[in-house]
Amino acid sequence: MRLKGFQKLVAVDDALQKFLNTAHFNPRKTSVPLHSALYRVLAEDIIANTDLPRTDRSAVDGYAVDADDTIGSTQFKPKTFRLVDADTLSEKQAKQVWTGNSIPQHANAVVMLENTKLLGKEIESWTTVTQWENVSRRGEDIHKGEIAVKAGTRLKPQHLGLAAALGVDDMRVFEKPRIAILATGNELVELGTRLREDQIFETNRLVLSALCNELGAETLDLGIARDDAREISKKLILGLEKSDAVITSGGTSVGEPDIVPESVNGIGKPGVIVHGVAMRPGMPTALAVVKEKPIIILPGNPTAAMLGFEIFGRPLVSKMLGMKKTESRPLLEARITKRMTTTLGRRNLVRVKVSQKDGEFLAEPISARGSGRISTMTKANGYVIVPENLEGLESGDRVSVQMFENPEV
Amino acid sequence: MRLKGFQKLVAVDDALQKFLNTAHFNPRKTSVPLHSALYRVLAEDIIANTDLPRTDRSAVDGYAVDADDTIGSTQFKPKTFRLVDADTLSEKQAKQVWTGNSIPQHANAVVMLENTKLLGKEIESWTTVTQWENVSRRGEDIHKGEIAVKAGTRLKPQHLGLAAALGVDDMRVFEKPRIAILATGNELVELGTRLREDQIFETNRLVLSALCNELGAETLDLGIARDDAREISKKLILGLEKSDAVITSGGTSVGEPDIVPESVNGIGKPGVIVHGVAMRPGMPTALAVVKEKPIIILPGNPTAAMLGFEIFGRPLVSKMLGMKKTESRPLLEARITKRMTTTLGRRNLVRVKVSQKDGEFLAEPISARGSGRISTMTKANGYVIVPENLEGLESGDRVSVQMFENPEV
Repeated sequence: MRLKGFQKLVAVDDALQKFLNTAHFNPRKTSVPLHSALYRVLAEDIIANTDLPRTDRSAVDGYAVDADDTIGSTQFKPKTFRLVDADTLSEKQAKQVWTGNSIPQHANAVVMLENTKLLGKEIESWTTVTQWENVSRRGEDIHKGEIAVKAGTRLKPQHLGLAAALGVDDMRVFEKPRIAILATGNELVELGTRLREDQIFETNRLVLSALCNELGAETLDLGIARDDAREISKKLILGLEKSDAVITSGGTSVGEPDIVPESVNGIGKPGVIVHGVAMRPGMPTALAVVKEKPIIILPGNPTAAMLGFEIFGRPLVSKMLGMKKTESRPLLEARITKRMTTTLGRRNLVRVKVSQKDGEFLAEPISARGSGRISTMTKANGYVIVPENLEGLESGDRVSVQMFENPEV
Repeated sequence: MRLKGFQKLVAVDDALQKFLNTAHFNPRKTSVPLHSALYRVLAEDIIANTDLPRTDRSAVDGYAVDADDTIGSTQFKPKTFRLVDADTLSEKQAKQVWTGNSIPQHANAVVMLENTKLLGKEIESWTTVTQWENVSRRGEDIHKGEIAVKAGTRLKPQHLGLAAALGVDDMRVFEKPRIAILATGNELVELGTRLREDQIFETNRLVLSALCNELGAETLDLGIARDDAREISKKLILGLEKSDAVITSGGTSVGEPDIVPESVNGIGKPGVIVHGVAMRPGMPTALAVVKEKPIIILPGNPTAAMLGFEIFGRPLVSKMLGMKKTESRPLLEARITKRMTTTLGRRNLVRVKVSQKDGEFLAEPISARGSGRISTMTKANGYVIVPENLEGLESGDRVSVQMFENPEV
């Protein structure tokens, strides 16, 4: 039991690297139909099995012609073409095409409908077109054999569209990792219970699950454990058995209820590999690996738990999802509106409220004090990472904000 | 049939305003359990029915005391307190508290564990604390009666956390709107079919559905209609009957297959209210309202369809979801890397690839030509809106990019 604080805090980057290097990751592959693949992470490159477009196609509605036959034509001196419905054009012939239609053999341009006049079985071209004008060339979108979508990509609507255009109808994706979530603390009760004095509703499981879910992981609710090593160990063992990772909150402070790291050490090797991180909030965070599976032990304070997830959970889950790099929140460049002091030697996560004024984004720090206030996380729309080598930020400093949601504009 | 192009293009803002003013919106409310409420849109303010914290609580592990009793105490001249386990302190008494515990009556500060020494039934305080030091005051997070989360908010993990802390276990949210999606075009076939010459796989329904789904709407697939007014009308009628809105792609160009707007006009009033928008791509977009329900008629070109959705679909779906304002994509400020020309009088949507260099974000325009290329949407990671009054952007111009995903950093 450490009653006097942590002997030594580990730097965030070192802690994270040690953690990710110690745990074992082997995301499994599976196939899903294309229409279910939104936001899944692609497990194998999609390689184009065809040119796109598959043929030279018209990019407009009009008449396919040989460009040479249009040379010199204007509205006042049009050239005339015989309309045919054939797969091959002869000299001074034209074929009507709609956007996307293949153009016939010996055609190499399309005159837009607007620039023509239909005269029975002939058309007049009122304009000169150059070779391949208004034509989408075979393979100009993508060539057969090219990588269309890279493994590790989070599949957005446009990736599905490209896969569909190539005729890919099922997708090799990584299985969703499953993460077990446990809250510990004698003071915690389930929502819907009647509160006694000194009790509070447990909120971290809901928030941590939602954070995992929005990244694309499934979650398993291990419930609330009292500050009891046996109860905690039992739930941890269940979590490790049924899931690929465990995230806990509470029971990791410097005081007596520092019971979760101890429980983790009791259930397997190597156990806790980092305890006490040079960050603020979230200093009592611990990182552990048991049977090659990662365990993140977050503080019980809701704000510290959420920000601890940002720092350690996002990289972990991104890796478990099979992504090549950590999926960060949207970034926004803004200017700090007032001086703020942070702790030298710690990575400080400062909640800010970004708003737009005179075309510029301004980030207002939200109550340096009171990191325990849940409402600061809803009043803020992002946070700024102040690195370890700074003692704060000056008013007017440019910062990069990790956004929870878009600023009001 | 307009073979010579649109008589007059409507400005984007005018088109959108007319569209949203003509359609009728009345999102229905429903209740969902808190754990299912992620990303739903809140329909009624959540008003705090209690102070948070509910009592004055310790913000640290330590000993609750009367601050006055610590005056003058230092490590070399500590003050001594008698340890009690009572709900009320007398003079020079202290009670052990863990983070989050209520402090007893007559206590107004907490001495951190690190600054104390335990001596049997007494403790020494090695520091002087001020009134309310290390205490989270009752109501400091949120006061009873305050609005905790505003109606119209998209519920993120932190909103769920705050609701849970207040004991709210079901949430009044708006029902998910349902949007029917139809693709039209003789050249289109379903994925999984064997392609004949001149056919292409239909991709827009998949992309448009995914775009609706990621905003939180449900979708109904109306399939592919051939360029046949009867077939299109039948599917539109079904879509309007089963859904709150319809989005179509194809059959809205200036040529012969301009059949969707005509079909819409045949099924009800007021029908098409905008056809031809001053934007690029997406000019042939039409907007319609039938039986008060909105219909967006997008071009068949996959890129124009997707960007048309950005301009008209996002505001529409946001409104149908019950949001107060359109949910835009994450914004990123960047500098354009090369001069690009756009069309004066049109709102130009320029796809860009944003990357970071020397701490600055650079936006490289992706192929001004070939708006039909699907791969430009996957090569780009965002788009820039160039307003109607500009003829282009100069290299170095600062722009605000609507991001599809984070840039590589």
